[in-house]
Amino acid sequence: MTDTTASPGAPGLVVAAWQADGPLRDVPAALVALDAAAADAAAQGVRLLVCPELTLTGYDIGPYAAELAEPAGGPMAQAVAAIAAAHGLAIAWSWPERDGATVHISAELVDRDGTVLARHRKAHLYGPDEAAAYVPGDGHPVVASLDGFTVGLLVCYDIEFPEQVRLVALAGADLLVCPTALMEPYETVSSLLVRARAYENQMAIVYANRAGTENALTYCGSSCVVGADGTDLARAGDEAALVVGTVTPVALADARRANTHLADRRPEVYGGLHR
Amino acid sequence: MTDTTASPGAPGLVVAAWQADGPLRDVPAALVALDAAAADAAAQGVRLLVCPELTLTGYDIGPYAAELAEPAGGPMAQAVAAIAAAHGLAIAWSWPERDGATVHISAELVDRDGTVLARHRKAHLYGPDEAAAYVPGDGHPVVASLDGFTVGLLVCYDIEFPEQVRLVALAGADLLVCPTALMEPYETVSSLLVRARAYENQMAIVYANRAGTENALTYCGSSCVVGADGTDLARAGDEAALVVGTVTPVALADARRANTHLADRRPEVYGGLHR
Repeated sequence: MTDTTASPGAPGLVVAAWQADGPLRDVPAALVALDAAAADAAAQGVRLLVCPELTLTGYDIGPYAAELAEPAGGPMAQAVAAIAAAHGLAIAWSWPERDGATVHISAELVDRDGTVLARHRKAHLYGPDEAAAYVPGDGHPVVASLDGFTVGLLVCYDIEFPEQVRLVALAGADLLVCPTALMEPYETVSSLLVRARAYENQMAIVYANRAGTENALTYCGSSCVVGADGTDLARAGDEAALVVGTVTPVALADARRANTHLADRRPEVYGGLHR
Repeated sequence: MTDTTASPGAPGLVVAAWQADGPLRDVPAALVALDAAAADAAAQGVRLLVCPELTLTGYDIGPYAAELAEPAGGPMAQAVAAIAAAHGLAIAWSWPERDGATVHISAELVDRDGTVLARHRKAHLYGPDEAAAYVPGDGHPVVASLDGFTVGLLVCYDIEFPEQVRLVALAGADLLVCPTALMEPYETVSSLLVRARAYENQMAIVYANRAGTENALTYCGSSCVVGADGTDLARAGDEAALVVGTVTPVALADARRANTHLADRRPEVYGGLHR
């Protein structure tokens, strides 16, 4: 399970985190911004663009979540798939997902041909506002293949739990993508925890945060592309930005030669984590 | 389980990591060095001194481990207890432990009155040399009370596994102490992973490494005292050193107000970690 999925001679996967600054509850304007970001990314050779949590609605929509929510395959999903097709890249994005009477914070990975490769419902909700508006997912790890790389998908607070990230790594991920909405004063999550998750799992990570403010929230930026050895390949400041990095089979193999944590785990010892 | 054990008004616990430079396979000389370090620590008000892995024998003793090994309560343990008593502080130290035909890499926490408060056998052995010389422990988390703080105990490679550290945090630890022997080029473990373990568990950590060289190994130092918010309270360079920090109930409470990861875990999701 620690083998690199992509063969050593395979080309790298150029990935980007889109650190978006607004808008809040204006989906048409957000689609215009996403289209511009996708054009920018495509011009830089990006194959996979990762967007912030609740990409098109904005994050701080608590009381409006049910009203803004759409089922999988709804209008927002169709618009994102069209942008992916127009610019010839895959997009990992997030939206308030309606499923009958419940609403989830979901993310999906859509390829340039419109195929939805993976879908995940945020399993670790953050704080009372999220608990009031959303239902958590089941945390089952999802992975999909993209250009020979195995890509996993989590949302925001999920990545702070080493247990949840480990499940994705054990499912074979070479790369974890994570839309997020990380506010001040929690920048340490991006600069410390995200890098640790990459290092301890020998897995690259794209962590795409917001910039700017929404109501009382100020986002701390610091979106990043981190290599499987825990080093930053690219990191944003606190302004709107597109940060680009390349995940390579050689770098994955090097990290997995230097560290063998997945193989050295002792699962029989960890029963106390699952109660 | 996320409550601070010590009451907010309680005094801080002054702790130190002793970053020792040799000797290898010279227990009498190592005891002299430990005695000097304990005197230095006591003069700085230290209540708990944490020593490197295989404190008195040196780490790189592979073929000699069986010969150097002693049972719990053996001559090395008695000598360490005497040093603790002489200088009036608790000591967390490590030795090759004989138990019948098997040898473990063990650590124990001995109080200044000679009471052994906790004992742990390294559960994650590192590499083929350790696997050839030692038997791993069962990984069951051990904690003990010291001046109102709950102290947990791991050894070296154990701390690189978030699962193992989480078990100690779930057992109620305010402070994790970890003798280690971290060699180049793995300094990232101390500067990144140890800080992440503290942050994600809201638990202070003392990580005591070696300095200098043993045979072909060069240790990277970087011993540290890290607060429950993941910030360095003290960190050594790569030379022999004694680094001192204070764990306070107020800082623990602040970290646990800022982050509530232990309460927000979803144990029912984590079955895949335990197979």
